Amino acid sequence: MLSLEDAQIRIKKEIEIIDLPLVPKDLYDPVRYILSLGGKRIRPALVLLGANLFSDDISSAVNPAIGIEIFHNFTLLHDDLMDNSVIRRGKETVHIKWSPNISILSGDVMSILAGKYISKTNSPNYKDIQDTFNRTAIEVCEGQMLDMDFERRTDVSIQEYLEMIRLKTSVLIAASLEIGALAGGADKKSAAELYEFGLNLGLAFQLQDDLLDSYGDTKTFGKKVGNDILTNKKTYLMITALNNSKPEDKARLLDILGWTTIDPFKKIDAVKAIYDACSVKALTIDKINQFFDLALQKLENINIEDDRKIVLKKFSAELKGREY
Amino acid sequence: MLSLEDAQIRIKKEIEIIDLPLVPKDLYDPVRYILSLGGKRIRPALVLLGANLFSDDISSAVNPAIGIEIFHNFTLLHDDLMDNSVIRRGKETVHIKWSPNISILSGDVMSILAGKYISKTNSPNYKDIQDTFNRTAIEVCEGQMLDMDFERRTDVSIQEYLEMIRLKTSVLIAASLEIGALAGGADKKSAAELYEFGLNLGLAFQLQDDLLDSYGDTKTFGKKVGNDILTNKKTYLMITALNNSKPEDKARLLDILGWTTIDPFKKIDAVKAIYDACSVKALTIDKINQFFDLALQKLENINIEDDRKIVLKKFSAELKGREY
Repeated sequence: MLSLEDAQIRIKKEIEIIDLPLVPKDLYDPVRYILSLGGKRIRPALVLLGANLFSDDISSAVNPAIGIEIFHNFTLLHDDLMDNSVIRRGKETVHIKWSPNISILSGDVMSILAGKYISKTNSPNYKDIQDTFNRTAIEVCEGQMLDMDFERRTDVSIQEYLEMIRLKTSVLIAASLEIGALAGGADKKSAAELYEFGLNLGLAFQLQDDLLDSYGDTKTFGKKVGNDILTNKKTYLMITALNNSKPEDKARLLDILGWTTIDPFKKIDAVKAIYDACSVKALTIDKINQFFDLALQKLENINIEDDRKIVLKKFSAELKGREY
Repeated sequence: MLSLEDAQIRIKKEIEIIDLPLVPKDLYDPVRYILSLGGKRIRPALVLLGANLFSDDISSAVNPAIGIEIFHNFTLLHDDLMDNSVIRRGKETVHIKWSPNISILSGDVMSILAGKYISKTNSPNYKDIQDTFNRTAIEVCEGQMLDMDFERRTDVSIQEYLEMIRLKTSVLIAASLEIGALAGGADKKSAAELYEFGLNLGLAFQLQDDLLDSYGDTKTFGKKVGNDILTNKKTYLMITALNNSKPEDKARLLDILGWTTIDPFKKIDAVKAIYDACSVKALTIDKINQFFDLALQKLENINIEDDRKIVLKKFSAELKGREY
């Protein structure tokens, strides 16, 4: 059985030898560039692990795994342009290094390349793999659109927020596992259970990210703590606070959201004081644990030997163990 | 047998009843909008005609035909953004009516929707249909990139230009016919011949467009004559003139390309005088006729009853009959 690290190493190698045309240079250089920036390759690794759950031979899952990684990087490329982000993984983003037009077109070709790699499999479950990918890719676009919509709104509900992160983040993690399972010969029911495992894991992971952004340890989290607060992001924490705080705290929170020219630490502390007053941290941890529990339940439902599930259980436990 | 008009009417109806989600509104409204702007629906009609060449039952070709039309409109949507065009078919372009970001994301979802419709067929040639689409979609991106590259160059060769229009325009016309043929049950060899028919027809058509832009009759051509000259577009005519004119004419042509603040008619007349001095019109017509002849030869090669070829021969003859 492959460990997560084995799968990541395999993907890293496959991405390194990926055979892209040399010309037109301005079309394919940005593709090579963004794929070379690294990242943890979690999604394609999950494709391989999903296959390995049902089969020792994972060869049918390799190209779909690459397709998933290309698709994920395509979304990063276009998201960076839409958000006008200048840095991605410590390097200039494509629209800065080249141009917005080149970023649009290179992204477009990546989206099609993704579909091409997804379809390069000799799995008999070929059609289901294709369908899962198409459905998921559409959902990811919907999630990104909702995220952009929410930036202009202050009345986003918890339910709407969960639906947004489900579409923007979780479905691709879930689909990676499902596509892997299908490529590994899983029956539809088992593949669907594995999808649900991934979906709940993805939701837990995104809420953890929200929590870590406000309550994480700068050293272990890696990013600057409080960034979501400073940029007025409507995270699970912020929405929970807006919904659960006393009227005077809610009014104060809305007031703080308007603060711009102030010491950033003051703003972070002021928001976190309101979070603390209505138990935002505890409520978020409860929700995260619910999703982790649900995920593990879905994994239990799959009718294969327990031994084969160890790798995914370990992955889930490692995620759950992130400190906050 | 379907006539071209029958096929166009069928496509028009299918596009009208296409089932797109209502939300997120800002994601799908632009998709509905651009698909509703009309156009001649030539490409999807060719999918149906390609199928009808080999089968009376064209049902397996309908969804792929819609996929081709969605893909074509996706390229228009992103091209309009990259070129910053404000009008498409007499209406505001998506990035003007909504925003650049919405145009990026709606285009992205269209590209995936296209692949989804292409894959919604019960044809046994499903995999070949998929492969033809993926290969072609990638080529169209390459063609657009070359077109953008060429804007900054004055040394584009005839061969490079033909390769650019092959990728940007012809392969999609060719692939439409091939995908139709495959959906209609054609063998690979016949489908490939039909592809070549479409490819040469597409090249002839694009060169005709170049010619009509400078030598067309405003009434029948519809667009403003001389626009390519005014915008310094490196068309087949311009490249032929730069290659074939006497040194002093070439120097004058390069000089004219720098003219900006002058009576447009003067610029058009000055360029056309040089075109006439080195027989650009006759050379272009020769090339167009070569492509038409080659196209018909490819159609002849297909081993089916002559009766079935009448519709495509008529289509080809009508294109050839455009006046210049």
